[in-house]
Amino acid sequence: MSIKIITISRQFGSGGRTIAKTLAQKLGYDYYDKEIIEQVAEKTGFSKEVVASKGEEAPGKSIISYGFEAQATPGIMNGMTMNDYIWSVQRKVIKDIADSGKPCVIVGRSADFILKDYDSILNVYICADKKFRAERIVKLYGENDKKPEKRLDEKDKKRAANHKHFTDLEWGYAPNYDICLNSSVLGIDKCVEIIEDLVKRG
Amino acid sequence: MSIKIITISRQFGSGGRTIAKTLAQKLGYDYYDKEIIEQVAEKTGFSKEVVASKGEEAPGKSIISYGFEAQATPGIMNGMTMNDYIWSVQRKVIKDIADSGKPCVIVGRSADFILKDYDSILNVYICADKKFRAERIVKLYGENDKKPEKRLDEKDKKRAANHKHFTDLEWGYAPNYDICLNSSVLGIDKCVEIIEDLVKRG
Repeated sequence: MSIKIITISRQFGSGGRTIAKTLAQKLGYDYYDKEIIEQVAEKTGFSKEVVASKGEEAPGKSIISYGFEAQATPGIMNGMTMNDYIWSVQRKVIKDIADSGKPCVIVGRSADFILKDYDSILNVYICADKKFRAERIVKLYGENDKKPEKRLDEKDKKRAANHKHFTDLEWGYAPNYDICLNSSVLGIDKCVEIIEDLVKRG
Repeated sequence: MSIKIITISRQFGSGGRTIAKTLAQKLGYDYYDKEIIEQVAEKTGFSKEVVASKGEEAPGKSIISYGFEAQATPGIMNGMTMNDYIWSVQRKVIKDIADSGKPCVIVGRSADFILKDYDSILNVYICADKKFRAERIVKLYGENDKKPEKRLDEKDKKRAANHKHFTDLEWGYAPNYDICLNSSVLGIDKCVEIIEDLVKRG
């Protein structure tokens, strides 16, 4: 099995992004994470912050955002909600990346689902125990008013709801991926090693 | 991380049992699968067929089985349903295996949950695409009146409901395991190799 595209879905704070970045460096693959947000922002005219947050939440949550949607980019959005519009552009960006034929690692954004008909793809899910994730987000992003456990719960719920809405699949359900690794048990380096070995040795 | 106990949860037809058996042979670990059913059958007086089937279904499904339960082993069962009684004995059998201190591979029976407080344990989940599983069960167990896809659906539902009832956890949800492998994508041999490497090299 020749793996040209690696998608990494990950729980918040699991180290999935670090694993993805290290893998891309080790394999010499292109790396897409915030680069996707930037491209979507550029194509839609929305700010990177709006694209990043809309890409993670379940649609139709906020009346304020609906008000905003109605005026955002009339004509182009063609009656779509803001989330649906961002999703459709994001989908196109991710497909273009895959179609370029250059080996790459793509973080998040339901790329596993968007590229489900592509060959030579490995879909990875990185998770970790809550304690590990809580400590990691405080270390990486600092403290805020909310307890880290609450921040994790909120983010997990948002990502799962967003994924379910657009893919009709359960986020984190093992049969939806090729390999799922618990980074707090196996270690971040070992996760990289396992995936690197799969790509190099098949 | 020194791994002395490997639990293998698996989708029906995914090759999880083959992976478990091969691993035990390669590592020189004891192997527990039907051996657990035999021990539970011996301790409870129920037939192996009853233990095997009750160990997979969600309790309280059948009025007939309830009628049977009421007369099964009065006194010992102490008001428990048949499923709960079998579960409690099975739990004890699995804990005794772990407490023996001998390295082992245990297939199914929610051993991952039962041994959740044990150290030196690796909890594995093996899944596979439906087509692969359907072909495999026909090859291994032959055809019957039901379509293989329907047999898979029924078995998946039973295992998930049983697991949920006794553990309150979602069966197949990646964060509940240490590593989840899709055998139809990675190949059965590769699944063995990845786990063997984790045990040998940590």
